[in-house]
Amino acid sequence: MGNNEKEFVKEVTPQNVDFSQWYLDLVLKTELMDYAPVKGCMAIRPYGYAIWENMQHLLDKRIKATGHKNAYFPVFIPQSLLEKEAEHVEGFAPEVALVTRGGNEKLAEPLVIRPTSEAIICSMYAKWIQSWRDLPLLINQWCNVVRWEKNTRPFLRTSEFLWQEGHTVHSTAEEAEEEARKMLDVYKDFVENELAVPVISGAKTEREKFAGALRTYTIEALMADGKALQAGTSHNLGQHFAKGFEITFLDKDKQLKYAWQTSWGVSTRLIGAIIMVHGDDRGLKLPPRVAPVQVVVVPIITKKKREEVLRRCRELLGELPAEVRVELDDREGYSAGWKFNEWEMKGVPLRLEVGPRDIEAGGASAVRRDNGEKSFIRSEDIPGKIQVLLKDIQDNLFRQALEFRESNTHRVNSYEEFQQLLEEKKGLFQAFWCGDLHCEEEIKNDTKATIRCIPFGKEDENGPCLYCGREGGKMVYLARSY
Amino acid sequence: MGNNEKEFVKEVTPQNVDFSQWYLDLVLKTELMDYAPVKGCMAIRPYGYAIWENMQHLLDKRIKATGHKNAYFPVFIPQSLLEKEAEHVEGFAPEVALVTRGGNEKLAEPLVIRPTSEAIICSMYAKWIQSWRDLPLLINQWCNVVRWEKNTRPFLRTSEFLWQEGHTVHSTAEEAEEEARKMLDVYKDFVENELAVPVISGAKTEREKFAGALRTYTIEALMADGKALQAGTSHNLGQHFAKGFEITFLDKDKQLKYAWQTSWGVSTRLIGAIIMVHGDDRGLKLPPRVAPVQVVVVPIITKKKREEVLRRCRELLGELPAEVRVELDDREGYSAGWKFNEWEMKGVPLRLEVGPRDIEAGGASAVRRDNGEKSFIRSEDIPGKIQVLLKDIQDNLFRQALEFRESNTHRVNSYEEFQQLLEEKKGLFQAFWCGDLHCEEEIKNDTKATIRCIPFGKEDENGPCLYCGREGGKMVYLARSY
Repeated sequence: MGNNEKEFVKEVTPQNVDFSQWYLDLVLKTELMDYAPVKGCMAIRPYGYAIWENMQHLLDKRIKATGHKNAYFPVFIPQSLLEKEAEHVEGFAPEVALVTRGGNEKLAEPLVIRPTSEAIICSMYAKWIQSWRDLPLLINQWCNVVRWEKNTRPFLRTSEFLWQEGHTVHSTAEEAEEEARKMLDVYKDFVENELAVPVISGAKTEREKFAGALRTYTIEALMADGKALQAGTSHNLGQHFAKGFEITFLDKDKQLKYAWQTSWGVSTRLIGAIIMVHGDDRGLKLPPRVAPVQVVVVPIITKKKREEVLRRCRELLGELPAEVRVELDDREGYSAGWKFNEWEMKGVPLRLEVGPRDIEAGGASAVRRDNGEKSFIRSEDIPGKIQVLLKDIQDNLFRQALEFRESNTHRVNSYEEFQQLLEEKKGLFQAFWCGDLHCEEEIKNDTKATIRCIPFGKEDENGPCLYCGREGGKMVYLARSY
Repeated sequence: MGNNEKEFVKEVTPQNVDFSQWYLDLVLKTELMDYAPVKGCMAIRPYGYAIWENMQHLLDKRIKATGHKNAYFPVFIPQSLLEKEAEHVEGFAPEVALVTRGGNEKLAEPLVIRPTSEAIICSMYAKWIQSWRDLPLLINQWCNVVRWEKNTRPFLRTSEFLWQEGHTVHSTAEEAEEEARKMLDVYKDFVENELAVPVISGAKTEREKFAGALRTYTIEALMADGKALQAGTSHNLGQHFAKGFEITFLDKDKQLKYAWQTSWGVSTRLIGAIIMVHGDDRGLKLPPRVAPVQVVVVPIITKKKREEVLRRCRELLGELPAEVRVELDDREGYSAGWKFNEWEMKGVPLRLEVGPRDIEAGGASAVRRDNGEKSFIRSEDIPGKIQVLLKDIQDNLFRQALEFRESNTHRVNSYEEFQQLLEEKKGLFQAFWCGDLHCEEEIKNDTKATIRCIPFGKEDENGPCLYCGREGGKMVYLARSY
């Protein structure tokens, strides 16, 4: 490594020195984002936004394939609307931004910038829904939302963020429950298969559920520093909002009934998950499915063979399948080594090096970002082999993340063991919990760890409560979290 | 026509009775939008939003093909930032919405909800640009913006609207000018070829230019009621913002220079243009390229042949090319005639009717929305013929709109003639103008018509000013407008 290269890599704090600083260094250095001159807000730069666009594309297809249509509702919510569901306003009022002036005049009623859109959407649904024929109503929205956060962190928690929020209405409790669970499954499929981030699905406790929901379901991921991240949630809203907003329908039996609702969302926070699950001290490792650049072609230029190398690189671009996102780095004034480091930091899954020796040997050298493996590929094999390698990198990133999660999931039988392991090993902890709010809060107060979820499929496993020892507790996952 | 059908169509006010009411009836009846419980704001319903999504997809491809990348900047602009460019703040300050409280506290500095993003984006560009190597910087953003409008109208002028805004930075004046003109051409190509709306390209007068721009270019369309609509603008910002925000770069000649900038945007207002250019008393006529449903299949069900007809309709769906957006209307409880009317009102370009007689004759009946023409298509010809028909409908809508514009463009030689024709015929008026602000304002005060643009390619045509009679005036287009 030349001096230049060492310096380049040195600019990012190593994970084991300060994981949090590593993260902040990386999001800035790789130009995913930059801090904006507004407290807690960020600019998502083109490289970061391209990841979001790829995610939007892949998730939007799934949302539409399950029968939902996109729409757009106003960013403003009259304050009085937010108050129609008691738990909802209690949960969100402390963190709203308020517009009090418009067009040089004081507004008669302040407007809340949407922190989530249940209130404004329900006010419209009350107009649109009259009969069972209008149901189910399956709408999704891609938009910005604002929550006035005290402690912010790029992508993970910002005052403004981008997300999608689905809002559906059903004629029965069963159908709403089925929808809430179905969309959680869609999220799990999306996050695991496109972002290569393994997640655990389950229910939130009463304490942790969405303000106004009957039940909240969640997918939880484990970051490389041993903290959990809530990666997406789906809420069965029951009839809470329908009652607050008078969303009623005339059912087939001629009875006027309150409707049943769900809402569900994932946000730009998932970019944070990708960074913290896959990244290492050399930089990002982007899963090929969402990487803005999947393959970078770097010419190894020597004085004599300059034109020949560049010509072969350009040819290569044309030979790759059209669906592969490829970039040629033919910038002048940078060494090949410097470029290798930069693209590694930017997390590009696959690098193709083309130098005079590669040309002579009739191919190119491929270097994988996930495991550093280098291989020589003959020219005629490149188009097919690239696709295979990208698929393999995607799978390997998922496998590595899953192995990491498994080796950092600990089953604990006593509170002492839990407290000790939490300090020593971090990670996810499986334990039993009696269901009592008091135990849940004491655990949080003592350890800063929270119950991340009551996992699906473990309902039959019961045992003594981690905190109070009472028998018959449900299996839960606990962790410190973002 | 049965009674039902007459009633259905009657609900929309005819254009010649009240064009404005026709428009308002139509946007509500076709479920493009609905009024929200916030002054001047609307909910864009799935049918309207699907048009926007199709438009986004087609324009985004063009924006990327010309080298731009998408990004996202905060919705909030500190008030002091807006003030850095004097003309800009003067133009926008009267119509901003202000956030004065966040998280239950009064903010030290009020935040403006972006009415346009020059200020916040320039504050970031000042950090990101140091050297000529950083230029050109070509960024676009899709987002919501807010302008506190007194008189609103669905899609055409709402307090919140959706748009894209491009913001580019260049090292020379020539390059910025070239970019501003290039993006206007992109808009013209997009609006004419995808929305089938013919536009006139030209420059805005000093009075009508964007607040803070050096020059504003515009594409202007003529609506069916004879009013003009500004369909998109592209601004050469010169160095105005660069000087206000200190966007400087070290040029190749080692001199520190202020950068040159452009910005350009189109919005959901274009949905209004589609409605008002193509629609008629029976409803919308959507150009196939952006229609959410391009082909609707309506079964003509008789008691005896019910299953056979429905089976054939479903088969047909599978036979159409995958890229055709098709919907089968197999709802029960509605007559075929009722469905015909509804889909005509919704502007679906092509209707396929399948009844027992069509099946017997080995095909389906196709009815075009643009001209009402009905033809029988044999089953084996349907896949190919559908594509041809959709293309033909698209072309015909453009041709009709162009003919309408041409027959409603009047060359006027005297102010009296102009005033008289403006009352009698409406439309676009070609005349000469001396370039004097006084004449421009007097014309507006007298007639409510404004100079829409100084068209490109007519710079050699000169004549006496419409208002003051001075010789050597430039050719301009005048009209009353939205």
